[in-house]
Amino acid sequence: MLGNTLGRAFRLTTAGEAFGTALVGIVEGVPAGFPLTEADLQGDLDRRKPGQSEISTPRVESDRARILSGTLDGHTTGAPIGLVIDNEWATPERIAAYVDEKDVIKPGHATYTYFAKFGPRRDWVADGRANGRETAMRVAAGAIAKKLLAERGVEIVAYTKVLGAIRCPDMAYEQIRAGAESPPIRCPHPETGRQMLERAREAKASGDSVGGIVEAIAHGVPVGWGEPVFDKLDANLARALMSIGSVKGIEVGAGFGVSEMLGSENNDVPVVEGDRVRFETNHAGGILGGISTGEDIVLRLAVKPTPTIALEQRTVDMDAMEPSTFRCRTATDPTIVPRMIPIVEAMVALVLIDHAMLAEAQDHRKEP
Amino acid sequence: MLGNTLGRAFRLTTAGEAFGTALVGIVEGVPAGFPLTEADLQGDLDRRKPGQSEISTPRVESDRARILSGTLDGHTTGAPIGLVIDNEWATPERIAAYVDEKDVIKPGHATYTYFAKFGPRRDWVADGRANGRETAMRVAAGAIAKKLLAERGVEIVAYTKVLGAIRCPDMAYEQIRAGAESPPIRCPHPETGRQMLERAREAKASGDSVGGIVEAIAHGVPVGWGEPVFDKLDANLARALMSIGSVKGIEVGAGFGVSEMLGSENNDVPVVEGDRVRFETNHAGGILGGISTGEDIVLRLAVKPTPTIALEQRTVDMDAMEPSTFRCRTATDPTIVPRMIPIVEAMVALVLIDHAMLAEAQDHRKEP
Amino acid sequence: MLGNTLGRAFRLTTAGEAFGTALVGIVEGVPAGFPLTEADLQGDLDRRKPGQSEISTPRVESDRARILSGTLDGHTTGAPIGLVIDNEWATPERIAAYVDEKDVIKPGHATYTYFAKFGPRRDWVADGRANGRETAMRVAAGAIAKKLLAERGVEIVAYTKVLGAIRCPDMAYEQIRAGAESPPIRCPHPETGRQMLERAREAKASGDSVGGIVEAIAHGVPVGWGEPVFDKLDANLARALMSIGSVKGIEVGAGFGVSEMLGSENNDVPVVEGDRVRFETNHAGGILGGISTGEDIVLRLAVKPTPTIALEQRTVDMDAMEPSTFRCRTATDPTIVPRMIPIVEAMVALVLIDHAMLAEAQDHRKEP
Amino acid sequence: MLGNTLGRAFRLTTAGEAFGTALVGIVEGVPAGFPLTEADLQGDLDRRKPGQSEISTPRVESDRARILSGTLDGHTTGAPIGLVIDNEWATPERIAAYVDEKDVIKPGHATYTYFAKFGPRRDWVADGRANGRETAMRVAAGAIAKKLLAERGVEIVAYTKVLGAIRCPDMAYEQIRAGAESPPIRCPHPETGRQMLERAREAKASGDSVGGIVEAIAHGVPVGWGEPVFDKLDANLARALMSIGSVKGIEVGAGFGVSEMLGSENNDVPVVEGDRVRFETNHAGGILGGISTGEDIVLRLAVKPTPTIALEQRTVDMDAMEPSTFRCRTATDPTIVPRMIPIVEAMVALVLIDHAMLAEAQDHRKEP
Repeated sequence: MLGNTLGRAFRLTTAGEAFGTALVGIVEGVPAGFPLTEADLQGDLDRRKPGQSEISTPRVESDRARILSGTLDGHTTGAPIGLVIDNEWATPERIAAYVDEKDVIKPGHATYTYFAKFGPRRDWVADGRANGRETAMRVAAGAIAKKLLAERGVEIVAYTKVLGAIRCPDMAYEQIRAGAESPPIRCPHPETGRQMLERAREAKASGDSVGGIVEAIAHGVPVGWGEPVFDKLDANLARALMSIGSVKGIEVGAGFGVSEMLGSENNDVPVVEGDRVRFETNHAGGILGGISTGEDIVLRLAVKPTPTIALEQRTVDMDAMEPSTFRCRTATDPTIVPRMIPIVEAMVALVLIDHAMLAEAQDHRKEP
Repeated sequence: MLGNTLGRAFRLTTAGEAFGTALVGIVEGVPAGFPLTEADLQGDLDRRKPGQSEISTPRVESDRARILSGTLDGHTTGAPIGLVIDNEWATPERIAAYVDEKDVIKPGHATYTYFAKFGPRRDWVADGRANGRETAMRVAAGAIAKKLLAERGVEIVAYTKVLGAIRCPDMAYEQIRAGAESPPIRCPHPETGRQMLERAREAKASGDSVGGIVEAIAHGVPVGWGEPVFDKLDANLARALMSIGSVKGIEVGAGFGVSEMLGSENNDVPVVEGDRVRFETNHAGGILGGISTGEDIVLRLAVKPTPTIALEQRTVDMDAMEPSTFRCRTATDPTIVPRMIPIVEAMVALVLIDHAMLAEAQDHRKEP
Repeated sequence: MLGNTLGRAFRLTTAGEAFGTALVGIVEGVPAGFPLTEADLQGDLDRRKPGQSEISTPRVESDRARILSGTLDGHTTGAPIGLVIDNEWATPERIAAYVDEKDVIKPGHATYTYFAKFGPRRDWVADGRANGRETAMRVAAGAIAKKLLAERGVEIVAYTKVLGAIRCPDMAYEQIRAGAESPPIRCPHPETGRQMLERAREAKASGDSVGGIVEAIAHGVPVGWGEPVFDKLDANLARALMSIGSVKGIEVGAGFGVSEMLGSENNDVPVVEGDRVRFETNHAGGILGGISTGEDIVLRLAVKPTPTIALEQRTVDMDAMEPSTFRCRTATDPTIVPRMIPIVEAMVALVLIDHAMLAEAQDHRKEP
Repeated sequence: MLGNTLGRAFRLTTAGEAFGTALVGIVEGVPAGFPLTEADLQGDLDRRKPGQSEISTPRVESDRARILSGTLDGHTTGAPIGLVIDNEWATPERIAAYVDEKDVIKPGHATYTYFAKFGPRRDWVADGRANGRETAMRVAAGAIAKKLLAERGVEIVAYTKVLGAIRCPDMAYEQIRAGAESPPIRCPHPETGRQMLERAREAKASGDSVGGIVEAIAHGVPVGWGEPVFDKLDANLARALMSIGSVKGIEVGAGFGVSEMLGSENNDVPVVEGDRVRFETNHAGGILGGISTGEDIVLRLAVKPTPTIALEQRTVDMDAMEPSTFRCRTATDPTIVPRMIPIVEAMVALVLIDHAMLAEAQDHRKEP
């Protein structure tokens, strides 16, 4: 398995599975001299961690990221930051409980593809590295990225835009920012949030689950971040967001809506505002030619309904190569959309700080 | 400018602008001993090249990719393949014609972001490297990738799914394959293609342009391609496709539709078919946990309406930092969707062959 | 700080300093299904660890590498292997003992360059990440690489070739292999080993230290490993070995001796041996054109005398920017050459397994 | 074949063989706005090109590097620089002349290793990509790197230190710089240069060749370049230099001499000089802990005697797998050491500018 590293100037490498001993992460490219302690990571880890509400998995974890290297006296030293998050829930008894379903394909999961790729010696306990648990390390590293972005005046807000076909109305950035964290759905529009919760409860009651859409906004990104060909800012964001399990679609700005627009509608009109250029609309979603425009970067992700449901499903036993059935016996998560929010923010932050550093490193001569 | 390389085991590095001397490409990772000549590249280059129909730009190029290294006697040698495609259209007179609009932001283009990032010494002639011309080299390299994939039983077909809000009805793969190349729209459904052409003509007549959606299908991909975390197969595909200019959204399988589905609907039911596992539906779009399932890989991309339109648009003169207007005086392309088809196929092919080689390189022990 | 990753198909990423909490490592590219436990790593870690003899530093560490992810039931799963080695010696009292020398340049160390690069917030405790302690993680990862190489019939032996100008006579590979581990000097020639030990004792008695040369031999490497241009096998080996602190020179085969040879002497004569090609001599050191020849790969490294000595040395106080003096008050290591042996073997192993996997991944057509 | 790219922030990717159509190169990371024309590259290309003296190969090439992209009006635009150097000597007749020796191992060359790795379809004409011809592109890119380094006050000088066991006496940097280019040997000490030339003539007269040592000095490098673990400045330099064909050893500063030194001799004494730290000696060769110290970076490379000699040599016919003989019928190069000088400078420059940019990109907080 390759592909456990993200980034070039700011890099995250991770290891770890759902029921291994711990998650491990190494963050490179953090400058020396910045204040950083474990407390800086805990806020977002707490936002992601399981067991926060009636619609979340019952797994219990303190999700404390320990910093094992790269800081001294509460400041970074420039050396890579070694991180460990223990899997406290992973007891031998709990692992043993998964043996029965070892060879049964769990519909909608990576069970079959891992089996086919890695063979019977893959980590089969709750799908091992395919389990969403690995995202905890992304969130820890993302918290470092966010802190470095905050110094550059950038903040990232994500929220539940759609849940089970219920859509949050369009709102101004400041309103979204103020309400994005509203529990348990993380929808900034209270009435819509209530309806979404009701929809999730209904799904749970029927042993089913619902999907949705997350919107993320990066506010304060200056013009000029992004490398214009294969590492376009939107290309790197799309890759990072699509690398989160359960994501099936990505949009930037007007997104799929462009297929119904005319060029004269879709082109954002540039205007002079003080000593800079602004745009009257933001169909571009803050990115043109793979480079940030200075407007808000606006992204949306489609999140599929949790594949783990309580209903009995037809499937295949891979060992016997015979039809079988599968019914999840543990408590289910009727939707993972609200828990995706901090993960999405982390991925956006990791990509942005990497591009910020790449951009700052290039000393283009600006005089004519 | 960094980010001119794509891939790990099969790698493409490119250089070149719209009005420079030539496009340059280097393709690494091609095995020794395969038949390869310039003729193998020309087919797809001809499909992408300008001037093919009434709805295409009038630029004239023979778009001949010359192979300068890496082959001997019509076979690859294992050495990197050096490619050059001349910019025949780029005469001094034509370059001079762009001087007037040097400092004017062309709405919907990368003019402003390049200016802000690279300074006044950027390549301002028809937006230089931001111009779609650089995709010719992607297509040339993609043709090599396709040939290597064909040996593995994989074929890639893309077509116009939506143009100006007109949608091609769902069709079986074999039908799509048979009709995908229908000129000039590249929609496999003849009646829909006629309507789309009409829509494009209307847009052109009014000096405007229309967007659309391209669907791409990779058929014959075996189970097991993809690296499961940051280099998920869908993550790498999303990045590659979003790196094409004008793409504003990416979907895999059910895509944004998952936001309205229940888990019990979205989960594809696995079944035994001979000695392998198949799925009754393909909402997953052929990828689970970032790894190919063996079903068709199904992708859709949102393509914005050509930003170059004949209507006068309000804009900004960056040099004077004053309001200005811009009207494109050259003939316009009412839609770029049909010309995107070979580019999309190339990008899908480049990602797939890279993952094929990564997968083949990993010798997991399959015995228990 | 970037550059904490080595390798492409088999990758090691590390973090950790001499007096941080722990060393952290992530190893990617290990196939699924191979037997691997912590015991497999301990042998080489014990060979590297401090306190093994009268000529070694008195730091005490159990140097146990814990595997936190990537294995299940004693076998690899294909997932990245997360490793942690605790710094047991790093107590607050011992850290506090370094405060006095915080701003004094320790001659021959990286004190000044780290200060200049990272600023006063660098990790100044025993030179932090510049301390040889980080090599423990290289050795742990190298043990995994060695095990994968052993399956391919490759073994790696290193030994003390020169210590304090005393040179081990040339010996056959089998003799070297049999005696390479002889304590405490790791010279396979007993009489020379005794003289070397005496030289080290003399240096220690006078508060000084001695340098030397390590020779490493990789036996059993098949023909065909290595990428022929910038990633020549010898280029990658040179980089990996020069990345070990205190190494000031690298030779392959005849090495610097080629400057006194004629072409007719230096060219190794190819001969047929059964169904393969062998060479009568091995001045090439097992590598031609950056690719392994099938003969033993022979490398030599120059190791400088330990810069930490008990004699008082003139130096500079960086804070005051004034002349100062420095005398190491802890027990000194009169030579680090014997402790380098397992580190050298690890670095050779890490490069070889990476190239093995890269070579195996390329499916060149061998028929004419 | 992978490994055709060097560098991270400043990157060179190359393709091309000795008798292909042309060499191709792409240089990424060049900032926008710098003056650059083909004339800037020609000086070093002329220094490397064949046919300069009686001791050089008779191949005739104008070695003109054409810039196909990345510049406009004599200045860089920030876009990657596409370069092509035609192989003018590569006519069908000359290629045909190599057919006879297609399957005969040329002793000391990469013939056998390429055959074993790439199969019979490898490029067998004058060893294809293994031929020193590919270094022309390194020199072209190196000239860009040198120009960017010159802006940073860094200059690089290399010269013939040893030829056929004749050694140039130690000289001050200014003297070396003044005389380094002395034709045809490139030894700054005239009397030694004459003796070296005589030695080369003797070797040529007897159909043989001689090896030597090149010394390279990078002057003006500030303190702080280098990434301290696997990408130590000396590690990256060693890799880059060892990637040049025929190089069998690398030394930094005191190099292999450290094996005979005491710690008290080898440690360079730091002293205050104005507002900076200098060192009384430079055994470290300008690098400590993988980071530049501000002193001259001093490197030496062992270059093997040209394997192409006029004497008949025993060898193997790979096709028949039988003993054979080989005698080079073209005019021979009794030594390649003088022609290595610009190549060595180029490789040092490519590594240094990459590390300069990596260092400049990291914004460590310097206040306490």
